[in-house]
Amino acid sequence: MLATVLHGPGDVRYEHVEDPKILKPTDAIIKLSASCVCGSDLWPYRGLQPMDGPAHMGHEYCGVVVEVGSEVKTVKPGQFVVGSFCISDNTCPHCQYGFQSSCVQREFMSGAQAPYARVPLADGTLVATATMPSDDLIPSLLAASDVLGTGWYAADAARVQPGSTVVVVGDGAVGLMGVLSARQMGATRIIAMSRHKQRQDLALEYGATDIVAERGEAGAAQITALTHGVGADAVLECVGTQESMRQAIQSARPGAMIGYVGVPHGVELKGESLFFSQTGMLGGPAPVRRFLPHLLDLVLSRTINPGKVFDLQLPLADVAEGYRAMDERRAIKTLLRV
Amino acid sequence: MLATVLHGPGDVRYEHVEDPKILKPTDAIIKLSASCVCGSDLWPYRGLQPMDGPAHMGHEYCGVVVEVGSEVKTVKPGQFVVGSFCISDNTCPHCQYGFQSSCVQREFMSGAQAPYARVPLADGTLVATATMPSDDLIPSLLAASDVLGTGWYAADAARVQPGSTVVVVGDGAVGLMGVLSARQMGATRIIAMSRHKQRQDLALEYGATDIVAERGEAGAAQITALTHGVGADAVLECVGTQESMRQAIQSARPGAMIGYVGVPHGVELKGESLFFSQTGMLGGPAPVRRFLPHLLDLVLSRTINPGKVFDLQLPLADVAEGYRAMDERRAIKTLLRV
Repeated sequence: MLATVLHGPGDVRYEHVEDPKILKPTDAIIKLSASCVCGSDLWPYRGLQPMDGPAHMGHEYCGVVVEVGSEVKTVKPGQFVVGSFCISDNTCPHCQYGFQSSCVQREFMSGAQAPYARVPLADGTLVATATMPSDDLIPSLLAASDVLGTGWYAADAARVQPGSTVVVVGDGAVGLMGVLSARQMGATRIIAMSRHKQRQDLALEYGATDIVAERGEAGAAQITALTHGVGADAVLECVGTQESMRQAIQSARPGAMIGYVGVPHGVELKGESLFFSQTGMLGGPAPVRRFLPHLLDLVLSRTINPGKVFDLQLPLADVAEGYRAMDERRAIKTLLRV
Repeated sequence: MLATVLHGPGDVRYEHVEDPKILKPTDAIIKLSASCVCGSDLWPYRGLQPMDGPAHMGHEYCGVVVEVGSEVKTVKPGQFVVGSFCISDNTCPHCQYGFQSSCVQREFMSGAQAPYARVPLADGTLVATATMPSDDLIPSLLAASDVLGTGWYAADAARVQPGSTVVVVGDGAVGLMGVLSARQMGATRIIAMSRHKQRQDLALEYGATDIVAERGEAGAAQITALTHGVGADAVLECVGTQESMRQAIQSARPGAMIGYVGVPHGVELKGESLFFSQTGMLGGPAPVRRFLPHLLDLVLSRTINPGKVFDLQLPLADVAEGYRAMDERRAIKTLLRV
């Protein structure tokens, strides 16, 4: 089949690769309904993350099961499924505590920017819908696989509660999903930090009550003013740089939690500073599997419309342009129609 | 009066100082029933923390009110009171969220290793008992002022719950209070890391179910074995060094919280490492005021006996020996009889 391979910085190719096949009795093969490009794909694309040779890209996925291994019990060919970008058995102690992204059998999904993909540990990773969903829901169902699940985890880790005042640092797709999630969890004040008109508009549509365009000290001063000098109850850090983490810490009131889901690149934290600011922190790869059943319910009932975060749709063959558009910030997030 | 002044590393003097007096209408003057030496007093005593000239030492205190300023409403002369080492108004937003240790009017108590002391913001800082407590309860009531309140906060920040498996890093007085607190909160497994027989015994008496004497990698391996490869649900970090923080992180299962209350000295945290281990963290100076009413109830009803942590009692005049004994680890914690 033809699929997406990253050969090096800036070098995305749509080229022949081997068809995926069942390698273990716990595997499933799915036919993708759609896939997409993740903000985290841009780190190696930009040469900011080392690579071990060419990489089969794509870890966000939904589609129809076409084949399962002999031990797979909970999904079967013909079913529509959504899975997490983290492969998990959903039975180990970490999974049972709700941290499937630290499953003892954890793998990270790959090869989903393709017509077909192999999903390991299908029983623990995939969630099937009761019926075949309407085509217009595909973008939102796809979003649940990573970007929505990750924004949701940021809000969960930051312990957003009804009535909370929330700051969201980062206006990428995950940040926007963080806004949506905080709203669903009952936050009454959601301050989105964003400098881009289109993203500001989507943040407001998803439930943001305030926009702060400034960054750094000026941004921190704005947050202080908007929260009457107190700081936010919960902060979602959705970028992963030292600068964004500093912004998050400056936004938090003492005792607040920062849910951080941007993969940290070179972020260093001073113990003494965190101690005296009494800033709580919990981050990591999102345990999307924990949230998937609830998120699919919200999408299928049309309570939320996370699919709007995809502002560029391309055929899979044009995947290289999809990366370029995101890299150049011409697109928030690229959906690839398979 | 004669009181305790630290002039420089190792140089504790019991010498003439001015009697404390009401400086602001919100102050109270108390006659101390007892005071003590804190583990954190040892940082400047050991020359590991810069000093701005001679310091009036002592921030843990309980005693009888002798005078109050004109605006003090909730305590009056003759009442027995316990206060937090953090001075707070108990009305600002941070206080109302339960983080009185970040009060907008926060000061740190000083000058309590003395016969009399001035307590600022008396209404927000002091809690009075209904009647004059029995003399044998004084050590436990004194403990509530800092060491117990700090151990309690470590367990609270680490979100210890009924049934939790808890690791306590540090067998100083705060660590031992952490064990007691975790037990009160319903932890079923409490692993105390301690190399000292006397401290191990007290940890067991306070509710520890397991002792790990090893440190570093060997200690981490023991924790892994004791938790069947999973790690602890909650970790109390009660030291404040890079080594102890590493031990705490290695002890935590993904999604666990570390409550850290040892003032960090030179601790640096790597964002990427915390991210992938999914270690949650919340620390800081303990908001003892939040816990004081409950802790006083537990002491006055003789449900807990935190005062046992004082294994050396000296008259105030011998305060220098009290510091020496703790510095040389001959004593866990020195109580000073005033």
